[in-house]
Amino acid sequence: MKQLNFDYSAALDFINEEEIDARRKEGAAALAALINGTAPGNEYLGWLRLPATITPGEVDRVTSVAESLAQRVEVVVVIGIGGSYLGAKALIDALSGSFDDLARPPRVLFAGHHLGEEYHASLERYLEHRSFGICVISKSGTTTEPAIAFRLLRALLERKVGKTEAARRVVAITDEHRGALRVLAGREGYNTFAIPDNIGGRYSVLTPVGLLPAALAGLDIRAIIDGAAAMQRRSLDDGNAMAIDYAATRNALYRKGYTTEITVNYSPRLHYLVEWWKQLYGESEGKEHRGIFPAGADFSTDLHSLGQYIQEGRRDLFETVISVENTGHPVVVPADEANLDNLNFLAGKRLDEVNKMAEQGTRAAHVSGGVPNLRLLLPALTGYHLGELIYFHELACGVSAGILGVNAFDQPGVEAYKKNMFALLGKPS
Amino acid sequence: MKQLNFDYSAALDFINEEEIDARRKEGAAALAALINGTAPGNEYLGWLRLPATITPGEVDRVTSVAESLAQRVEVVVVIGIGGSYLGAKALIDALSGSFDDLARPPRVLFAGHHLGEEYHASLERYLEHRSFGICVISKSGTTTEPAIAFRLLRALLERKVGKTEAARRVVAITDEHRGALRVLAGREGYNTFAIPDNIGGRYSVLTPVGLLPAALAGLDIRAIIDGAAAMQRRSLDDGNAMAIDYAATRNALYRKGYTTEITVNYSPRLHYLVEWWKQLYGESEGKEHRGIFPAGADFSTDLHSLGQYIQEGRRDLFETVISVENTGHPVVVPADEANLDNLNFLAGKRLDEVNKMAEQGTRAAHVSGGVPNLRLLLPALTGYHLGELIYFHELACGVSAGILGVNAFDQPGVEAYKKNMFALLGKPS
Repeated sequence: MKQLNFDYSAALDFINEEEIDARRKEGAAALAALINGTAPGNEYLGWLRLPATITPGEVDRVTSVAESLAQRVEVVVVIGIGGSYLGAKALIDALSGSFDDLARPPRVLFAGHHLGEEYHASLERYLEHRSFGICVISKSGTTTEPAIAFRLLRALLERKVGKTEAARRVVAITDEHRGALRVLAGREGYNTFAIPDNIGGRYSVLTPVGLLPAALAGLDIRAIIDGAAAMQRRSLDDGNAMAIDYAATRNALYRKGYTTEITVNYSPRLHYLVEWWKQLYGESEGKEHRGIFPAGADFSTDLHSLGQYIQEGRRDLFETVISVENTGHPVVVPADEANLDNLNFLAGKRLDEVNKMAEQGTRAAHVSGGVPNLRLLLPALTGYHLGELIYFHELACGVSAGILGVNAFDQPGVEAYKKNMFALLGKPS
Repeated sequence: MKQLNFDYSAALDFINEEEIDARRKEGAAALAALINGTAPGNEYLGWLRLPATITPGEVDRVTSVAESLAQRVEVVVVIGIGGSYLGAKALIDALSGSFDDLARPPRVLFAGHHLGEEYHASLERYLEHRSFGICVISKSGTTTEPAIAFRLLRALLERKVGKTEAARRVVAITDEHRGALRVLAGREGYNTFAIPDNIGGRYSVLTPVGLLPAALAGLDIRAIIDGAAAMQRRSLDDGNAMAIDYAATRNALYRKGYTTEITVNYSPRLHYLVEWWKQLYGESEGKEHRGIFPAGADFSTDLHSLGQYIQEGRRDLFETVISVENTGHPVVVPADEANLDNLNFLAGKRLDEVNKMAEQGTRAAHVSGGVPNLRLLLPALTGYHLGELIYFHELACGVSAGILGVNAFDQPGVEAYKKNMFALLGKPS
């Protein structure tokens, strides 16, 4: 079977193998520290061997709870923020047709990922006339954004269908033993899934946090897990060094002054995978006044907005392209007799072929403009290969933070705004 | 009437008024060069006095063509890329309820803004069972992405409803006299609108390029124009210096090493306004290996992803927050007897109040963490104030590029990838 691959050849105009090798040595040590459990933040290494240990029974339970909720409702609102939002959103967008959610229930919507009042008002208007359920994801149950959204939507749901039926339509993903949501779920009799103590938010996509919403959207979660498990085995058991290569290359670039990494997709389906990547690396590495700034772009869309800057702006950028080899739904450019647009030279070609030439042409243009280019080659946009990519990035991020010399698994800076906000809102201490 | 305002007080821990004043002088000269028509790229200054000169007759024609198409169809696909996409998308998202498009036809969708094959296949499946029309926007009619999308969707439409009815359902926005789309529109008898020769793509949102899609989505385009015209008069005739202040402040920060600007919203409705801003500034200033890198963030969502980096990562960032004073749809946090989530201290408060305290708390946290903070204060999220903001940014961008010393109105780097792509695709020369 074809596998995820990494290609850094188009970075070698900017850094040489020796410079990468120096970082590779640090990367190998960082990987060993993850494997031996001696890395900083080692109480959060539960993700490292997770994929290969998920049992068929666990998958079946996620799938069957999702199916039974999906059968009851037209819409499921997934409530969560940060790691309890981005992984699920990334999976669903990547693996569903762009307009398919309108055709086949349940439609999966998101809430509790911000405090936008207009959004909430509009969502409530929309739900007023539809049958809906809730999948609420929060370790503590007290994080402001999702807790408020859950108060609001639970009240709406109970008003619409009564407390008994509402309880059948809520699934809670939360701490195994403690916390507000665990207690409430026990009282109300919700279906629940546990978030393991040793897995942080941004590393939780392969737990029920990401898998249950994916199953609600009708995705084959087994394939995602299989891909992740295969990548885990290759990386931890078979000595595949791709994660070290990527981590070493980006750190070598960083040391040379390339301080912003733009992860680029050529399919809008991957927009939120890039957002997930931004959290994973930004939150893991952005500390002690260090770290690569994680930016994202959707091409060719953003070639017509950020493209000018990337081609000719400040030379402190590098790009990492997620390149999908095979897409599944051929669309062919039609011939046109009049040919006023002069595009008949493309007639009979697949849209994807044009897209690939845009990708190839852009790589050459940006490299010659001074932008190092890395590539992650995904054989196809399937659950299996997405699982590979997710595990790859989780591991590479841990390795990369090790090379940089920071704890990959804490996020001390996230509390600062909350502390101020609570003081302003008069929260009792 | 309340007006758009700019507040740079939270940048003064990082730069002083003298440093800003030095840039203000350059800004005043740059503004004079725009007004006198002596700025570099002065053949593209048509936007400068546009808003106040749009006639009621022009507005009526946009509105009536939009209404007559809207009445015929369930869906309108707007085809365009770059400036022929982002302005329209920004207006529609900012001024429509987040889920309202599902409730009230026509639904406005976008195509031709990338080459994603899966997206196009999914769009065609969706349109197969719905009545639809097309608004195609392209100056030349030969830009690859929109031209391919138009070939595909025009063929689908003609197959579904026949050539005669299809022609009634297509509106073309293109060059006034020349080009592939102008010729085709003439042959087929499409309704057309002209893109003025002296207005570049990223400055075209207040022409039919942005206004017709906005009118299709049911927006009050007169209000948008009125707001822009008011801002134009204040800036050009009444000596309001806000555009110079913003341009001077960001350039003063840039000279001190703050090389990335993150424009931040606290409402997901403004996501695409930030994307529009990224094109406006990135394409205008990112040249000659200079310019501020334009990034965007949706808060509080991204406080749980990029937040850690912004709080504690490299100190080369500054933030510009779009702050909306009044939102129109109160949502109140309900009380809960059990209070397991400990949020009863918020009961009775509006969600928007919590959002505002998040904004205030975040500003304080980021400033004390080393991130200069600018604010654009929008009295409300209405067409009028959005019009003010759009004109403000157009003018400030021209001034800012003048301070930086680059031509704001060209984009020489955008052609590089296209040239390579055409060579790879074997385009006849």
